Amino acid sequence: MAVLFDKVAIIGIGHIGSSLARVIKRDGLAGRLVTLDSNSLHRAKALELGIVDAATDDVAEAVGDADLVVLATPVGTYADLAAAIAPHLKQGAIVSDVGSVKMAVLRDVGPHLPEGVSFVPGHPIAGTEHSGPTAGFAELFQGRWCILTPPGGTAQAAVDKVRAMWESAGSTVEIMEAAHHDRVLAITSHLPHLIAYTIVGTATDLETTLQQEVIKFSASGFRDFTRIAASDPVMWRDIFLNNREAVLEVLQRFTEDLTALQRAIRWGEGDKLEELFSRTRAIRRSIIDAKQA
Amino acid sequence: MAVLFDKVAIIGIGHIGSSLARVIKRDGLAGRLVTLDSNSLHRAKALELGIVDAATDDVAEAVGDADLVVLATPVGTYADLAAAIAPHLKQGAIVSDVGSVKMAVLRDVGPHLPEGVSFVPGHPIAGTEHSGPTAGFAELFQGRWCILTPPGGTAQAAVDKVRAMWESAGSTVEIMEAAHHDRVLAITSHLPHLIAYTIVGTATDLETTLQQEVIKFSASGFRDFTRIAASDPVMWRDIFLNNREAVLEVLQRFTEDLTALQRAIRWGEGDKLEELFSRTRAIRRSIIDAKQA
Ligand SMILES: NC(=O)c1ccc[n+]([C@@H]2O[C@H](COP(=O)([O-])OP(=O)(O)OC[C@H]3O[C@@H](n4cnc5c(N)ncnc54)[C@H](OP(=O)(O)O)[C@@H]3O)[C@@H](O)[C@H]2O)c1
Ligand SMILES: NC(=O)c1ccc[n+]([C@@H]2O[C@H](COP(=O)([O-])OP(=O)(O)OC[C@H]3O[C@@H](n4cnc5c(N)ncnc54)[C@H](OP(=O)(O)O)[C@@H]3O)[C@@H](O)[C@H]2O)c1
Repeated sequence: MAVLFDKVAIIGIGHIGSSLARVIKRDGLAGRLVTLDSNSLHRAKALELGIVDAATDDVAEAVGDADLVVLATPVGTYADLAAAIAPHLKQGAIVSDVGSVKMAVLRDVGPHLPEGVSFVPGHPIAGTEHSGPTAGFAELFQGRWCILTPPGGTAQAAVDKVRAMWESAGSTVEIMEAAHHDRVLAITSHLPHLIAYTIVGTATDLETTLQQEVIKFSASGFRDFTRIAASDPVMWRDIFLNNREAVLEVLQRFTEDLTALQRAIRWGEGDKLEELFSRTRAIRRSIIDAKQA
Repeated sequence: MAVLFDKVAIIGIGHIGSSLARVIKRDGLAGRLVTLDSNSLHRAKALELGIVDAATDDVAEAVGDADLVVLATPVGTYADLAAAIAPHLKQGAIVSDVGSVKMAVLRDVGPHLPEGVSFVPGHPIAGTEHSGPTAGFAELFQGRWCILTPPGGTAQAAVDKVRAMWESAGSTVEIMEAAHHDRVLAITSHLPHLIAYTIVGTATDLETTLQQEVIKFSASGFRDFTRIAASDPVMWRDIFLNNREAVLEVLQRFTEDLTALQRAIRWGEGDKLEELFSRTRAIRRSIIDAKQA
């Protein structure tokens, strides 16, 4: 692939940032790739792995002259980071990100960006429960979706360049309203994580012997939840704090449905249980058909 | 391995029954292996696969002369099946099962069994979301646990033979009180399934366009729940109806914890969220250490 950007700066060289860095290196998308990260171990690791040309904790050095700046830290850090990078952005630069919520990103980053800088927020629908630069890999985005939520009036050329980068990563790009993104992800991602954290938390409150048995016999279903509930605490704290309304709304629906099911179990209403359990199978089939399984 | 039983009868040649049949054939554990199944397609398939010597819908033919009879149908069918097989059981026969609940099995099967027949209920902690004889495979039980819950006074020789069969399948056998089994499994298996069914059910109630997007972007967490929620509806209906008290008790704890989390999100209490999300990571590590991941 041809060089898309003379200089790219990735802020946060963790699981997602380092995966993107690997793609940019592999495909030669940038003339020069620099990372800004507050974690000196991660900076050293990124250099050792050869996935960036330079690693710094100096904002001016990282984003000065950059054609593309990608925020890849927990979304709670975005407001301060945006304020810090803004004075160093060059005219014509593109600012993007990989955060799991999008309304809050428009709110926290948008107002800081100077005239002449394009803003193309993004969210790759890919990731694991692991963190840090060693957890990254270039194939992470292959065959996955990447959602972009550029605010109205964003230069088309800027959107096209960010799109080209994600397509090079093997993703299919979808343009969406930020509010809609947050509603969809509240269902597909934020609620599942909240539920998984809760059920694993419930298990950690059990007496010690019972808890040991839960670990022992986890293969019967529980195990799948523990993988999700092993995701990064700070990242997920920031997601829930920054997509509050959409999460609370879908949580309300979920709680109503759970209460109905609880009642069906209490009163021995087998038909209701079987009907729901049959309905949910169809969704699995759709996911397999959509090749997302 | 040496022949453990001259004749074995497996009632229900589905996912679990056919996996056990494959083990018995592979290891030569039975002189003769017969299945009783109400589904003629499954009987034909089992014969075609060569995993049983005979397949019938005649109770006397199946269990007459059998040294071991294993129930491997949904637990809601057990009471009627026990009544039907009882008159045909020979003296010294062992009756076992693979059902996912154990108190209800003692209640439904125990009273029907004549003097001179041993009862060794069992539950292999292994399985997938698939059903039927083609979904079975001999390695399913390898490296997994199998819990046996023989009632007090069961002949040790009978327990030892059933244990030997599961050890041949590659499982580690654990003896447990039925009530304790049901409490542990309510947490590790039944609650996770209930939650997964609920969340996928909540998604099926969304408007069509939103639902399509949920399928499209399922890789962000939701997907893992759909696999669990694709499990057999009848089997799971029977599990919830037959482990009602333990499931309702643990569901109550879960709901309290979820409400607390909901409140923390509503009031922006980031510390509480981060504290819980950090605590749940430890359980995942224990599961990996216990080699159940
Ligand atoms: N993981 C996923 O599955 C996934 C999927 C899609 C999108 N996302 C989004 O991607 C972003 C990053 O997630 P991740 O999983 O890649 O996290 P990660 O592995 O923890 O990486 C974040 C990196 O940024 C550093 N950092 C944190 N605060 C910083 C700051 N103020 N300035 C500079 N560097 C800072 C971190 O250092 P420390 O480790 O010392 O904090 C770490 O090196 C999040 O916004 C998340 O919502 C994640
Ligand atoms: N699947 C798991 O993950 C798992 C794990 C551990 C334990 N278990 C337990 O194993 C048992 C069987 O589950 P499975 O997944 O193997 O189910 P399955 O694949 O649906 O197999 C059950 C078989 O029994 C047949 N059957 C149903 N009712 C019958 C009756 N009254 N008389 C004779 N045959 C009958 C079924 O025919 P039809 O298909 O026509 O109904 C099917 O061939 C259940 O008690 C379950 O709790 C399951």
